[in-house]
Amino acid sequence: MGMDTIETIMNRRSVRKFERKPVSDEDLHTIIEAGRQAPSAANRQPWHFVVVRGEDLRRQVAEACSGQSWLADADTIVAGVGKPSVNEKWYAVDVAIAMQNMILSATALGYGTCWVGAFDQERVRSLLGVPEDMRVVALTPVGVPADTPEPRPRQPLSEFASLDRYGKALG
Amino acid sequence: MGMDTIETIMNRRSVRKFERKPVSDEDLHTIIEAGRQAPSAANRQPWHFVVVRGEDLRRQVAEACSGQSWLADADTIVAGVGKPSVNEKWYAVDVAIAMQNMILSATALGYGTCWVGAFDQERVRSLLGVPEDMRVVALTPVGVPADTPEPRPRQPLSEFASLDRYGKALG
Repeated sequence: MGMDTIETIMNRRSVRKFERKPVSDEDLHTIIEAGRQAPSAANRQPWHFVVVRGEDLRRQVAEACSGQSWLADADTIVAGVGKPSVNEKWYAVDVAIAMQNMILSATALGYGTCWVGAFDQERVRSLLGVPEDMRVVALTPVGVPADTPEPRPRQPLSEFASLDRYGKALG
Repeated sequence: MGMDTIETIMNRRSVRKFERKPVSDEDLHTIIEAGRQAPSAANRQPWHFVVVRGEDLRRQVAEACSGQSWLADADTIVAGVGKPSVNEKWYAVDVAIAMQNMILSATALGYGTCWVGAFDQERVRSLLGVPEDMRVVALTPVGVPADTPEPRPRQPLSEFASLDRYGKALG
């Protein structure tokens, strides 16, 4: 009983309005497990995820994200933290892959999410007690959506894809 | 009739053995479309995907990927190219998100994939005619798998996830 993969990918939206309703512990564990199963360079898993559920803390984290207070309306905020000491070159890409797994699994479970890249690195790190040698890569809320945004425009195929050689139409 | 999202995420493996069988044009377009629908910072879509199908070219690209010749056995290789000029800070993360969408949609359609990060940037760029101001972030083969690898080990929950504060058990 789930949502089809292609459908999930095509229907995911960046949600910025949430109901004050909980994410179940079971769903949260599924979402975290989806991140855990992500591939990473040489399987080094240079990541850590801080799952922010306390309401006061969510408000402070939202404030540290350029004051995007809507973030705290979601039941949960997940902060994706990278470990440059484990893999300096690939940690950001690996955290991104794991977070996209989480975001798609949350979407499939009916939750809204939104990649958040505008935040104060030092403040978020300090609020969440993240060690100094690690870096917050991005955050996402996970909550019951109160909005169904329309799809945003995307580049035409000819601009973002080529066949065999850059600029040659994929057709 | 597709594959459930959570199942796709949990069952994805890094496949390094392929049948000499084609990826259909229809499936390839679905996979590319899955990348196109990925979110990106400020929706700037700082990416381009070169879909390598010619066999000679696939052999040359595989050679430029530390001689991983198995790569060329897959019907198609997709090179994810980032545009630092469009978004210097986020291009690699955004390409990673779009590629994970592609990889999961390919998995759902029954194909094997594998994140490849070991490659000669200049050689791949030159083989695919990628402009000098862009950067190849990673590649993946897309093909009919000839192997079903076992899951690789992953860190225990306590090592990669925390509740509210780094190091506090998620439980």
